[in-house]
Amino acid sequence: MANNNDLKESLISKPSNGKDAVKKRRFRRVKSAPLAELIPGDVDGSAASARISESVFGSLHPSLIGVAAYLFIYLVVGVICFYLVRDHIIGQKTNDVVDALYLTIVTMTTVGYGDLVPQSVSGKLLACAFVFIGMALVGLVLSRGADYLVEKQEALMVKALHMRQKLGPSDIMKEIETNKSRYKFILSLIFLLILIMIGTLFLTFVEKLDIVDAFYCVCCTITTLGYGDRSFSTKGGRLFAVVWILTSTICLAQFFLYLTEINTEKRQKYLVHCVLTRHMTNVDLEAADIDDDGVVNAAEFVLYKLKELGKITQDDISLMMEEFEELDVDQSGTLSVSDLALAQSSPQAKGSTSSQGRPC
Amino acid sequence: MANNNDLKESLISKPSNGKDAVKKRRFRRVKSAPLAELIPGDVDGSAASARISESVFGSLHPSLIGVAAYLFIYLVVGVICFYLVRDHIIGQKTNDVVDALYLTIVTMTTVGYGDLVPQSVSGKLLACAFVFIGMALVGLVLSRGADYLVEKQEALMVKALHMRQKLGPSDIMKEIETNKSRYKFILSLIFLLILIMIGTLFLTFVEKLDIVDAFYCVCCTITTLGYGDRSFSTKGGRLFAVVWILTSTICLAQFFLYLTEINTEKRQKYLVHCVLTRHMTNVDLEAADIDDDGVVNAAEFVLYKLKELGKITQDDISLMMEEFEELDVDQSGTLSVSDLALAQSSPQAKGSTSSQGRPC
Repeated sequence: MANNNDLKESLISKPSNGKDAVKKRRFRRVKSAPLAELIPGDVDGSAASARISESVFGSLHPSLIGVAAYLFIYLVVGVICFYLVRDHIIGQKTNDVVDALYLTIVTMTTVGYGDLVPQSVSGKLLACAFVFIGMALVGLVLSRGADYLVEKQEALMVKALHMRQKLGPSDIMKEIETNKSRYKFILSLIFLLILIMIGTLFLTFVEKLDIVDAFYCVCCTITTLGYGDRSFSTKGGRLFAVVWILTSTICLAQFFLYLTEINTEKRQKYLVHCVLTRHMTNVDLEAADIDDDGVVNAAEFVLYKLKELGKITQDDISLMMEEFEELDVDQSGTLSVSDLALAQSSPQAKGSTSSQGRPC
Repeated sequence: MANNNDLKESLISKPSNGKDAVKKRRFRRVKSAPLAELIPGDVDGSAASARISESVFGSLHPSLIGVAAYLFIYLVVGVICFYLVRDHIIGQKTNDVVDALYLTIVTMTTVGYGDLVPQSVSGKLLACAFVFIGMALVGLVLSRGADYLVEKQEALMVKALHMRQKLGPSDIMKEIETNKSRYKFILSLIFLLILIMIGTLFLTFVEKLDIVDAFYCVCCTITTLGYGDRSFSTKGGRLFAVVWILTSTICLAQFFLYLTEINTEKRQKYLVHCVLTRHMTNVDLEAADIDDDGVVNAAEFVLYKLKELGKITQDDISLMMEEFEELDVDQSGTLSVSDLALAQSSPQAKGSTSSQGRPC
């Protein structure tokens, strides 16, 4: 097998060596700028750079509106339900509507102080239903809303970096790109500390707890532990709690998310280093040679290394290769303008690619 | 620019058309099998298929041992600490050691019934510390231990599929690969329902709650809501709770994780469909042409489409391209056996790739 490859290689590489010698180092290095414009806007993952520049001007992410709508519906239904069963709920009561809203939030975030608990069968089953839906909803806020929060945090990063050092816009973007997870982590930590401070001060001065109890209650709340021996017991306190609990629990979850991201990235960087420094052997060369022409071109090398890194799988490659072979009408092994012209003129080739699934 | 490209294309594509006409449809389709053997075992992401076959024989994942060790240390330290401050803890008490263990688990999983709560300043600060570390630890179990659980679940899937239909091992593997997230989701749902049933039966028959209260307490626990109006109050109940709470809260979190995975996969499949059915234009052709030779070869096409899908970024490509140019000693634009031989003989090329970072 290796011999066969060596033979093929010697037959093919020689002329290509001679032919290509005149165009040394001819790879276009600055490919990212022109490419970014060509990518359609609806392709989520690759439109990140466009989103960053938008975010500085404070545009609203469309998926966030969906999440906010779900959240609003959940809260309205929750308040109505818990208000209707208010006589079956025991505990420290203030205003009926505020208590219903407070119980909805405490249940949704799984804080569950237990200062207000359902007493009847219907009330208990209602709480069971709301806690499951609430968990799913908080997960949705975290996964979808995260995009929006990241945007906002990026805008803040730009500002912070601009103040700290006199950097040009392109320098800032570069700095953010390389240290994105670190900045996101630091920012969520700052937000978290501010929220902890606000909560502690509020509990000390409005709910009249002593400072240790206030801090203890804050920790019990943001982690959704909710022992319930210390909680919000006044009407004003519960109104504050509704906003503060939702914000701080999500902020802590985000903080842990970013912590994980930093770790993953570190491991990934180490892996990239390993894969890149590993010496290529003749066996690698043969495996990387997708079109079987005896030499590995630049794109084949990139694909091979990306696969080794686990960033892409053989399935990804196979799927694209099928499409490539369909497009390669003249079966030359390369796509050229003539292939595209041929593909457009032959009706059955067109039909085969656009007949499946819903329209894009 | 487009004109320039057309010209280049017509100059280059003609001879390559003629030369390659003899080897039509020559792409090697079954590339995955030989490649899998070539990939070093320590490369995490791509060793998945190897792990699947291992899991059937029940080998233990090394990262799970690490997580289990952390968990054990946490529990031991937790029990010792809460045992030492046992006089500062108020509530319904049974055995001192069991209560300390029970409080540790209830705190770590953020269930926080509040049936046992610290009363002193030291006890409260201890609980604050333990809940934060506990949250991080549960996150670690979820992210690291998930690998192991997935393996175990895959082994179960293989069994289930084998019983349902008489399939050969390779058919089963294929079936699992295509529907992996769906199977994982269904299995975690089954586990979850079993755990809910066990919990409800235990609370009904051992803790003597009525059936609705038992179910209510189960829901309050697995979601980590923990109102605390119904909880485990006997010594035996608390010992059961220690194991059951940890298992069921992690199982529910996994269930939600898989639910998200299914959704992500659906969106990803739709995106793949869109990207693949979009017609290639001359502009695309130029953008995809990494080595600027006027035609798009198979690997270039795959890279372009993967980038459009957002699976890889320009940064990924640039990094690999730098390495490629370093390896391409004769600067022919392709790697061949002669490049590898040249690279090994020149000492400075060798040094530049292996001098950075810690050894692999």
